[in-house]
Amino acid sequence: MHIGIIGLGKMGNNMRARLRTQGLTVTGYDPDPAVTDVASLEDLALALPAPRIVWVMVPSGKITDDVIHSVANVLSAGDLVIDGGNSRYTDDAVHGDFLATKEIRFLDVGVSGGVWGLENGYGLMAGGDAADIERAMPIFDALRPAGPRNEGFVHAGPIGAGHYVKMVHNGIEYALMQAWAEGYELLDSRKDLVTDVTGSFKAWQRGTVVRSWLLELLVKALEEDPEFTEISGYVEDSGEGRWTVHEALDRAVPVPTISAAIFARFVSRQKDSPSMKAVAALRNQFGGHAARKS
Amino acid sequence: MHIGIIGLGKMGNNMRARLRTQGLTVTGYDPDPAVTDVASLEDLALALPAPRIVWVMVPSGKITDDVIHSVANVLSAGDLVIDGGNSRYTDDAVHGDFLATKEIRFLDVGVSGGVWGLENGYGLMAGGDAADIERAMPIFDALRPAGPRNEGFVHAGPIGAGHYVKMVHNGIEYALMQAWAEGYELLDSRKDLVTDVTGSFKAWQRGTVVRSWLLELLVKALEEDPEFTEISGYVEDSGEGRWTVHEALDRAVPVPTISAAIFARFVSRQKDSPSMKAVAALRNQFGGHAARKS
Amino acid sequence: MHIGIIGLGKMGNNMRARLRTQGLTVTGYDPDPAVTDVASLEDLALALPAPRIVWVMVPSGKITDDVIHSVANVLSAGDLVIDGGNSRYTDDAVHGDFLATKEIRFLDVGVSGGVWGLENGYGLMAGGDAADIERAMPIFDALRPAGPRNEGFVHAGPIGAGHYVKMVHNGIEYALMQAWAEGYELLDSRKDLVTDVTGSFKAWQRGTVVRSWLLELLVKALEEDPEFTEISGYVEDSGEGRWTVHEALDRAVPVPTISAAIFARFVSRQKDSPSMKAVAALRNQFGGHAARKS
Amino acid sequence: MHIGIIGLGKMGNNMRARLRTQGLTVTGYDPDPAVTDVASLEDLALALPAPRIVWVMVPSGKITDDVIHSVANVLSAGDLVIDGGNSRYTDDAVHGDFLATKEIRFLDVGVSGGVWGLENGYGLMAGGDAADIERAMPIFDALRPAGPRNEGFVHAGPIGAGHYVKMVHNGIEYALMQAWAEGYELLDSRKDLVTDVTGSFKAWQRGTVVRSWLLELLVKALEEDPEFTEISGYVEDSGEGRWTVHEALDRAVPVPTISAAIFARFVSRQKDSPSMKAVAALRNQFGGHAARKS
Repeated sequence: MHIGIIGLGKMGNNMRARLRTQGLTVTGYDPDPAVTDVASLEDLALALPAPRIVWVMVPSGKITDDVIHSVANVLSAGDLVIDGGNSRYTDDAVHGDFLATKEIRFLDVGVSGGVWGLENGYGLMAGGDAADIERAMPIFDALRPAGPRNEGFVHAGPIGAGHYVKMVHNGIEYALMQAWAEGYELLDSRKDLVTDVTGSFKAWQRGTVVRSWLLELLVKALEEDPEFTEISGYVEDSGEGRWTVHEALDRAVPVPTISAAIFARFVSRQKDSPSMKAVAALRNQFGGHAARKS
Repeated sequence: MHIGIIGLGKMGNNMRARLRTQGLTVTGYDPDPAVTDVASLEDLALALPAPRIVWVMVPSGKITDDVIHSVANVLSAGDLVIDGGNSRYTDDAVHGDFLATKEIRFLDVGVSGGVWGLENGYGLMAGGDAADIERAMPIFDALRPAGPRNEGFVHAGPIGAGHYVKMVHNGIEYALMQAWAEGYELLDSRKDLVTDVTGSFKAWQRGTVVRSWLLELLVKALEEDPEFTEISGYVEDSGEGRWTVHEALDRAVPVPTISAAIFARFVSRQKDSPSMKAVAALRNQFGGHAARKS
Repeated sequence: MHIGIIGLGKMGNNMRARLRTQGLTVTGYDPDPAVTDVASLEDLALALPAPRIVWVMVPSGKITDDVIHSVANVLSAGDLVIDGGNSRYTDDAVHGDFLATKEIRFLDVGVSGGVWGLENGYGLMAGGDAADIERAMPIFDALRPAGPRNEGFVHAGPIGAGHYVKMVHNGIEYALMQAWAEGYELLDSRKDLVTDVTGSFKAWQRGTVVRSWLLELLVKALEEDPEFTEISGYVEDSGEGRWTVHEALDRAVPVPTISAAIFARFVSRQKDSPSMKAVAALRNQFGGHAARKS
Repeated sequence: MHIGIIGLGKMGNNMRARLRTQGLTVTGYDPDPAVTDVASLEDLALALPAPRIVWVMVPSGKITDDVIHSVANVLSAGDLVIDGGNSRYTDDAVHGDFLATKEIRFLDVGVSGGVWGLENGYGLMAGGDAADIERAMPIFDALRPAGPRNEGFVHAGPIGAGHYVKMVHNGIEYALMQAWAEGYELLDSRKDLVTDVTGSFKAWQRGTVVRSWLLELLVKALEEDPEFTEISGYVEDSGEGRWTVHEALDRAVPVPTISAAIFARFVSRQKDSPSMKAVAALRNQFGGHAARKS
């Protein structure tokens, strides 16, 4: 199989490498001449056998929109576009409908695994028609981890379902990370008693109920920098966590831990908190509690 | 009526003043010679008509314990001790039992109103026997705000009930303050649209569902310093909020807003968050997301 | 002044009454013949002196959209439409732009006060141009509570600002209500100690830091039904709380208490919780903990 | 090595079996004649070679207290007691100090793994002196999972550290479970889009960031009962989660996800929520919103 990839950033580049290792032929396009295989989308289209398959792996939002519109100009009826980026699931129907006007097929695929996916394989969640899924299966089989297909890949539903499942995956991930972080802070707060914090996490890796890959990564991070002296508690969020809470609000689903994880990130990025200034001001007003000058 | 007050800090001093304004005779004792009326607890006991009433208004915990034990040495059977400080309600039975061994009566009274109480009167929540409550009623009537007695005073139950109700009062207060603070931060975040943030809060003071004294204090604070430039978002907590959550855990009562308010204060006091360092470290491990150096 | 009101439900009807009491002439239109003053929007337009002022007081969303489009057909350049309903603030610019194509002016006004507004007056938050605000001021003065204008009315900013401020007002209100509710549950859980729960709340009404109108309503409710035996813990939400959290997510503002209040309402409406079924299933899997059959 | 176990419930019984499989000699005592190896604690002491090692595996709190006091009567100076139950870490110093008065040694060990530990091995976190740890190492090596010792066992610190680390482990576990549950409810709420919910979770088991044992158990539970029709969303808590939050309050550590997980369990057990009755009553008071009759 010979496919195209648009977008050769950290993720796209790794995926091209893994696909090639697994025996597929891949032509990549990226505006960066240092990584691209071809000079233009036109050249990409020319390089691929028809009917073509093009995997789009670019930042979600306007960039994905633009790429899908651009690539549609160089593709033909019967070609297949796969959005493997982190698009909001509500964008998928728009993209699918647009491509359908040109008789181009569309799949949305959520991809998890980060920088480790190159070696371990990626968890894949796909949305779209069964026939299109079937057609792209050699790609999915090459990208997913070794083992049973259904432990690393799912056809989750129609267009949009792949990114929906990926969105929820990331929402859960936010809360899991926050849970680990709260536990870390508690152990760290009692070094008078717990003299081996890193070793305590390390000992959970086999046998306990909480064993998991995030735990292994936490142990790895602690072994590299046991006091986290080289890292600041400033944490970005990449959108999918917020979308998860937006969706939860729309569906009346209570998500106290996922929202708490996102709010903690918001606070982590504030130099001083307007909220807490207001609380300090109130205490000062009613109790004459001395408030710190900013 | 002639009573004693032990502890003439910000609260005790104001209360002595209010009681005198309302026509009671008050002898105050404090280790600080600048404010005390008598030189020692012995002198305080000598100054008071028997059976004596002594109002204790000192910091909760060990200091209150010590004062109650010391004053017991100079009091007699039939005297009445009132703990008007912010003692944990579980301390009250201990104090009451101890004083009972000397046939000294005991009441616990939660007092709310802060620095405004001198002028407005204090909200009072009392625990103990009805006869003791009745005996101290002239004090309560002098301290509480004008208006119907039951809108400024309650005999909440037996010993401990006064401080229990005050503890819950403060737990609620924490959450109310946090609610106001979140709303403030939201309005503050949209000054592009809401051009009069202070005026918006001010306009809520009559007619709206949220009108309240805390709102009035927020307006006052904003009128004094509309951007909170003179105040830092560093907020202490004084114990009763935590006790409320401890109690909620023991009673299996869900308190998501009260606990959120306390956690926000904890975070406000951290220079850097161990939790968020852990989250940043995890993101760095799996995603190669650049983390800020500390 | 003579104005029109469209929508004579619980709120619109009360507002017509209050405006008339305050000396304004009001012609109301509603599809319900039992309450309407005129038979049609055309008749409403004919009844009003030009340039006309029409206050729209209908449910937000599609109904408000429809009414604004319909009324535009019977109005003329220079007329003024005021949306006093609970529209999402993002709708206001759309409505304003649409009306501007017909040279009809527009204001958005958030209204708080519930069923008590008829007697007490309503808290008002307005968005739009200063000249339009000035023109409608007799209406605002009639609707708002007695007292200084700026304690019951604010010109918060341009179009959208009124509903934005009202949205945040309601978000705060959700969290305030939840705070009161948590405190109630705690006191209720300790009736062994706190023998007068209603009286405890009642005693907070004067003097304490937490005194507020919501507290007065809670006391009123408890006096009517001290054990809440006649009411179920099933609570709807009307949209503005969710919008507040949506906005907070978009602005990266942490709102732990407002979101907790909304999630508590979501849970209150579930017969059985899918989340907690999942937790029960997990406990059963790893611990052999017996789970209740549904 | 030949040791004693007191307490042959679900956990103790499995641990006896695993220790025997691993080549240790184990004499168990339990009041239940159906499972015990000896008739009394005296017989247990007689059966064991001196200096003895006795592993206590009974419910925490009073029962553990009683067993430790009883067994001390039949042990001798130099014997070693290991508390492998879920004791609160603050109990450990008390037990250690008591046993020290009889020159009996003490270790506290947190044990994780549930019913799967028999086969997989248990994660172990120990507190106490290094010499005692060394002495008990053959037991730890037999109980822990295969693989490197430090991935299934930790000497976390002095007496109390083992149960402290286990307490935090369980606090994290609560939040992790809640995170999974929220994600499940979201996917379940969108079965119109996500047509294969179980398959979606299943596909995360390899390659994704969230892969973990809890995920595998969730998949197992869903494969057994895909709609959770056989299970009720009523969830007990066993103490350690609450202790974690108590500790966090005492240490000023923010734990929003751990507390949210516990509060969700509290709510899950309420037939009707007093909090939400109060919210419903408030809405009814100010808005005339119809409230459901209970």
